[in-house]
Amino acid sequence: MGSIEEDRSATAGKVISCKAAVLWGPKEPLVMEEIRVDPPKEMEVRIRILFTSICHTDLGFWIGENEAQRAFPRILGHEASGVIESVGAGVVDLKEGDHVIPIFQGECRECAYCKSENTNKCLKFGVDPMRKLMVRDGTTRFRTKDGTPIYHFLNTSTFSEYTVVDSSCVVKVDDHLPLDKMSLLSCGISTGVGAAWNTANLQVGSTVAIFGLGAVGLAVAAGARARGASRIIGVDINSAKFEKGRGFGVTDFINPKEIQTPVHQEIIKLTNGLGVDVSFECAGNIDVLRGAFSSTNPGWGLTVLLGVQAQPDLLPIHPMELFDGRRITGCTFGGFKGRSQMTTFAKQCFSGAVDLDKFVTHELPFDRINEAIQLLMEGKSLRCIMQL
Amino acid sequence: MGSIEEDRSATAGKVISCKAAVLWGPKEPLVMEEIRVDPPKEMEVRIRILFTSICHTDLGFWIGENEAQRAFPRILGHEASGVIESVGAGVVDLKEGDHVIPIFQGECRECAYCKSENTNKCLKFGVDPMRKLMVRDGTTRFRTKDGTPIYHFLNTSTFSEYTVVDSSCVVKVDDHLPLDKMSLLSCGISTGVGAAWNTANLQVGSTVAIFGLGAVGLAVAAGARARGASRIIGVDINSAKFEKGRGFGVTDFINPKEIQTPVHQEIIKLTNGLGVDVSFECAGNIDVLRGAFSSTNPGWGLTVLLGVQAQPDLLPIHPMELFDGRRITGCTFGGFKGRSQMTTFAKQCFSGAVDLDKFVTHELPFDRINEAIQLLMEGKSLRCIMQL
Repeated sequence: MGSIEEDRSATAGKVISCKAAVLWGPKEPLVMEEIRVDPPKEMEVRIRILFTSICHTDLGFWIGENEAQRAFPRILGHEASGVIESVGAGVVDLKEGDHVIPIFQGECRECAYCKSENTNKCLKFGVDPMRKLMVRDGTTRFRTKDGTPIYHFLNTSTFSEYTVVDSSCVVKVDDHLPLDKMSLLSCGISTGVGAAWNTANLQVGSTVAIFGLGAVGLAVAAGARARGASRIIGVDINSAKFEKGRGFGVTDFINPKEIQTPVHQEIIKLTNGLGVDVSFECAGNIDVLRGAFSSTNPGWGLTVLLGVQAQPDLLPIHPMELFDGRRITGCTFGGFKGRSQMTTFAKQCFSGAVDLDKFVTHELPFDRINEAIQLLMEGKSLRCIMQL
Repeated sequence: MGSIEEDRSATAGKVISCKAAVLWGPKEPLVMEEIRVDPPKEMEVRIRILFTSICHTDLGFWIGENEAQRAFPRILGHEASGVIESVGAGVVDLKEGDHVIPIFQGECRECAYCKSENTNKCLKFGVDPMRKLMVRDGTTRFRTKDGTPIYHFLNTSTFSEYTVVDSSCVVKVDDHLPLDKMSLLSCGISTGVGAAWNTANLQVGSTVAIFGLGAVGLAVAAGARARGASRIIGVDINSAKFEKGRGFGVTDFINPKEIQTPVHQEIIKLTNGLGVDVSFECAGNIDVLRGAFSSTNPGWGLTVLLGVQAQPDLLPIHPMELFDGRRITGCTFGGFKGRSQMTTFAKQCFSGAVDLDKFVTHELPFDRINEAIQLLMEGKSLRCIMQL
């Protein structure tokens, strides 16, 4: 870290030239190129990103699933960790050298949402797929070396050696925690574990079904196991994920392609005719959502939506199906208030609540990011950590 | 009550001839006629109904909104109170002379649902719109004087001087409580108050919007006021209900027909841009449901569905609209476990938690039941109590 220390003193207040992976059009390979990163403005910080990984939300924007997601050139990436290079005017709770993770779901601590204990939504720095510029002044801190502005992404843009984010979108973590694993807490793992802990509030003996055993789904399993769930049923069309799943606490597996009956009937059978207490939709597919709902207990079952539903389809549920007390909800970032709760959550993970190592299936240098995208697209990786 | 006492000793074990209001076809006036009521079989009781009122669910079946609701001849009615005339074999917790209310949402106390504290659903005696016979032996206890079998309705069939119900569908109430008002607890009032207390678990300071100010909606208001809700917004297309609403605690009124903007925008304005904590859909209309959902806070708002949605329309909600933490659920009978909780709830009402008198807008003799139906159809009555 000696060289980073040196960089910081040399670069504060100046434009930095560095390497970033830039997206120029839907599904195009990211182009590793030199970009310019402006110094942080008021209440912003500039971060030297040290590790980043790829999450399915990045893929959604890479593919450009819908019009709102398309803005080019752009720097994607929202799972990362790094060190504060410099801070803008007015930033008092972060300083150069702090170990941090950027969080796409910010926390301004001033809006009515931040002041409520019932949500992690933030009016100013919440998730807005349409947003592509810095919140406070509506401009970008990135440009190509010939001056073309580059758009930001989800408050973070971590596929760059340096990024500028608002101080509301940064969490300081303990210096002694390994920064490579910390990057996982930026999104997927926190989303899954938080859904189990915060949104579903699972208890000892809860029965659970998880639809989609990617990193988020397996993080739900890890969270469910940590809470003492008695049955954790994993559903995926890729049976290769089952062996991996056992390590996260999944007790039963169903591959919908390998059975004749609908999945929910299998799950109801596995749970003494009751259905599960909670189902988690982690696939972002409306038919899977229907299956997840149908798998829950009609009297008290909760369906938690985690997968991004990019299509216009509405909930395939009749109102009367809720009349015996079934519930549906969703969550962003696992319901965690990032700045308020992530520092503690990071410690909990490293104290054994969640084994982060198991999520890291691949490691690649940053300049092989397009391979990392392919690994995730093909379901071969959970998380591929890239060092920058 | 002397004559009833006498009746009981004279009639136990025998077929009773009595007056009932029989439905012979959709929307046909009920025919007041002499019917035969068999003695209760094992685990059943025969009740001398003394008071009954009409609820919108009766109207739905009277109209025959969908095929499942059509079965003739039939005796409707599920809000009532009375006295046990005789009990069948095996009944130990009820006896001749007990003051009771029949409950359409039974409680067998043996199924997995009854044993769970998370639901009031009962596998055996829950609401089943298709059911038209006694649960245990699949036969009827009613027939016309020329022997035509008459169908049961919602476990209760209270539009009759005598009815037979399963002992799982009966609640004993204290002898000193006025039986006329007790009939209201059989359905609508318990549904509304229970939705506010059990399903939404309203707290001091909660903000609430109620869509549809019939008896159920006003009972929600009464329940919300009892919990200390700070704002209770009533929505109805009949402004005549607003004055009545004030007496139940409604603080603000919106008539969608009298404003240019969508209702949910008005509600968001009334709640400092936040939307309400909880909205209650008490109209049974899918567009109203959409408005109720849109009126809730995006970060923590809960929509509770109470109105029966007889049409096939699915939830008009996109999954991503739940991602900031919004929730949707429904409830039957306000989430109350009837046999376990109604006796206490009745006492609470008469101790001042809910003013039952205010719900009684009309009283009519039983043989004018068709007038009572019209009063409710036209929105002129909240509850019309008929003495039998």
